[in-house]
Amino acid sequence: MGIIGAGPAGLLLSRLLHLQGIDSVVLENRSRDYVEARIRAGILEQHTVDTLTAAGLGDRLQREGLEHRGIYLQYPGTRHKLDFPELCGRTVWVYGQTEVTKDLIAAQLDGGPPLLFEVSDVRPEDVDGDSPRIRFTDADGVEQVLECDVIAGTDGFHGPSRAVVQGAAGRVWERTYPYAWLGILADAAPATDELIYAWHPEGFALYSMRSPSVSRLYLQVDPAEKIEDWSDDRIWENLATRFALEGWELTTGTITEKSVLPMRSFVSTPMRRGRLFLAGDAAHIVPPTGAKGLNLAVADVTLLAQALVRLLHEKQTDLVDTYSDRALARVWRCTHFSWFMTSMLHRSGDDFDAELQLSQLRRIAASEPAARELAENYTGLPLDL
Amino acid sequence: MGIIGAGPAGLLLSRLLHLQGIDSVVLENRSRDYVEARIRAGILEQHTVDTLTAAGLGDRLQREGLEHRGIYLQYPGTRHKLDFPELCGRTVWVYGQTEVTKDLIAAQLDGGPPLLFEVSDVRPEDVDGDSPRIRFTDADGVEQVLECDVIAGTDGFHGPSRAVVQGAAGRVWERTYPYAWLGILADAAPATDELIYAWHPEGFALYSMRSPSVSRLYLQVDPAEKIEDWSDDRIWENLATRFALEGWELTTGTITEKSVLPMRSFVSTPMRRGRLFLAGDAAHIVPPTGAKGLNLAVADVTLLAQALVRLLHEKQTDLVDTYSDRALARVWRCTHFSWFMTSMLHRSGDDFDAELQLSQLRRIAASEPAARELAENYTGLPLDL
Repeated sequence: MGIIGAGPAGLLLSRLLHLQGIDSVVLENRSRDYVEARIRAGILEQHTVDTLTAAGLGDRLQREGLEHRGIYLQYPGTRHKLDFPELCGRTVWVYGQTEVTKDLIAAQLDGGPPLLFEVSDVRPEDVDGDSPRIRFTDADGVEQVLECDVIAGTDGFHGPSRAVVQGAAGRVWERTYPYAWLGILADAAPATDELIYAWHPEGFALYSMRSPSVSRLYLQVDPAEKIEDWSDDRIWENLATRFALEGWELTTGTITEKSVLPMRSFVSTPMRRGRLFLAGDAAHIVPPTGAKGLNLAVADVTLLAQALVRLLHEKQTDLVDTYSDRALARVWRCTHFSWFMTSMLHRSGDDFDAELQLSQLRRIAASEPAARELAENYTGLPLDL
Repeated sequence: MGIIGAGPAGLLLSRLLHLQGIDSVVLENRSRDYVEARIRAGILEQHTVDTLTAAGLGDRLQREGLEHRGIYLQYPGTRHKLDFPELCGRTVWVYGQTEVTKDLIAAQLDGGPPLLFEVSDVRPEDVDGDSPRIRFTDADGVEQVLECDVIAGTDGFHGPSRAVVQGAAGRVWERTYPYAWLGILADAAPATDELIYAWHPEGFALYSMRSPSVSRLYLQVDPAEKIEDWSDDRIWENLATRFALEGWELTTGTITEKSVLPMRSFVSTPMRRGRLFLAGDAAHIVPPTGAKGLNLAVADVTLLAQALVRLLHEKQTDLVDTYSDRALARVWRCTHFSWFMTSMLHRSGDDFDAELQLSQLRRIAASEPAARELAENYTGLPLDL
């Protein structure tokens, strides 16, 4: 089969199918260096860790990943810990998406199915029939045709697959949020044992980490903000204000990367047309507040791999026929949760909203069901909702 | 003490204080007939029932009130029951606010403190000192002065007390929702054992009841809708569409009352200035979706009665000093819950919102913590949050 896109979704799908004896070719329009350098999410749900481990990709993850047993919700005067094992019996792991991608590429190139970088002009064709194909130009500039049983469009938001699946009957849902994240990577030991989600009158801030010596911090900013206007000093000052808590100190360090990230929700339906199946960012984007993007992509391809094994080995179409609906149920759950976290934590500028947010945060800090509801969604729900 | 306003808040406060040996005079600018005919909310939290019963007002409530053990959440194809005793060990009661008011007035006039109807030009004065007073004109047109230890402003949204408490330092939060409720009373036996909260593409609908022979039904409409444009037939047709479920039939009957109700959230802070204390609608309005308005008023006056007993009997100011903050914590919790129920169930016209709403409703139907969180808030949280 053909897999368009060598992000975590496409690479993991190729791996899962390979382990079930199904061959694939993965096509990627970027270079390996580019793909391995992209900085993305960093929180893996338990289910994602289990899937990667079962696929033989758990060695470095177990060694270098950091198990996290909760998060802090902060609002002025309070930093409240949600204890995930106590609330829902699960944990999450801090392990960068970049590292997951490196592990997947290494596994793929070590006897796995073909992985072609720097291809261009990729076109899925004849997806409504039983013999679809992918036309593309390879890294040497030679036009190629890949005949396939099935094609997976794991080519992200800008890839060509979604438009083909959409055709005339598809539909798109989109929401652009009126804020962005200014994100930094800093050579600073994390000043916290767990991530801190901080509501503050001046805007949301998130303290996360990538390793025992690298912190990843975010500030809510206006989407129109220019990164040039944010000196390192200004960033640290704003972080210190928003995370301020009696008896706690922010540790600073050299900022090695900074950028402004827009925030939006996007869902494309259906996730299948004939023999072309979408998974991951090709079909949906969530704002990063709920840490769901990568995990949703892994859930998609886990469902898709099961469906394709059933189709290709057993010639049964039941699971491919329900793939889109089953995946979308989870997509909307995670879209809702990401919207909920985003809406609860970001300052909209409306003071009525602010009081609702604070009442919600205090309720989560005081109420077992409210805390459990957040913890269950954050650590990841079962594959089939 | 002086109590301005003979709605449930003022009357219950007078009753609770009377039982503790504290005298009051209740002033009401409307007539008894008017007050006893106002149609308002109909759902009492367990805590409200307990408070009324402890105050000797439980006889008719126990006889005519209907205990309800849950609600239905409906969305296309599904009518899901939330079982309150199972989820949180509490129930609610259907008993109209009108009936509560009648019971309170009857008790007041049967040897209780003075209750003066049809007064006018009511003015709380000198509330910052230890000897406030209320000037008013009585039903005979005679100017009167009521010297008080303390004044309670339970005079609703349009009463004079809030402006005095606000003074120069107060603050108001307000949100107007872009929908209204068209409400009817019908001589029709309820076609359901529990209230039905129905999400529908054409808009929200609520099926509630007042007695075994009277139903109270609501349709989400545009706030600009004119009641003249809604014939009885049109109302029943819309109700039938929105409550439609295979195997279930709407029963119709004579419509005895119909009106369009606006929906908004409103909070005024603080709830105290010197010797003047606000409670109920004088300080806050919630949209009716969460059935919180009357219950919040009862909680306010329960807190206030405790604080005033402590002040007037024990000369301790601790509870009056914390009254506003304690009441407002609950006010914001209920404001958030009412906003949550309203936002989850009403069609905004935005299809992205609709998918979030459906995902949330499905989650509540599938998840114990999500259902418990709704049930705990709906049936009423403890007095002190």
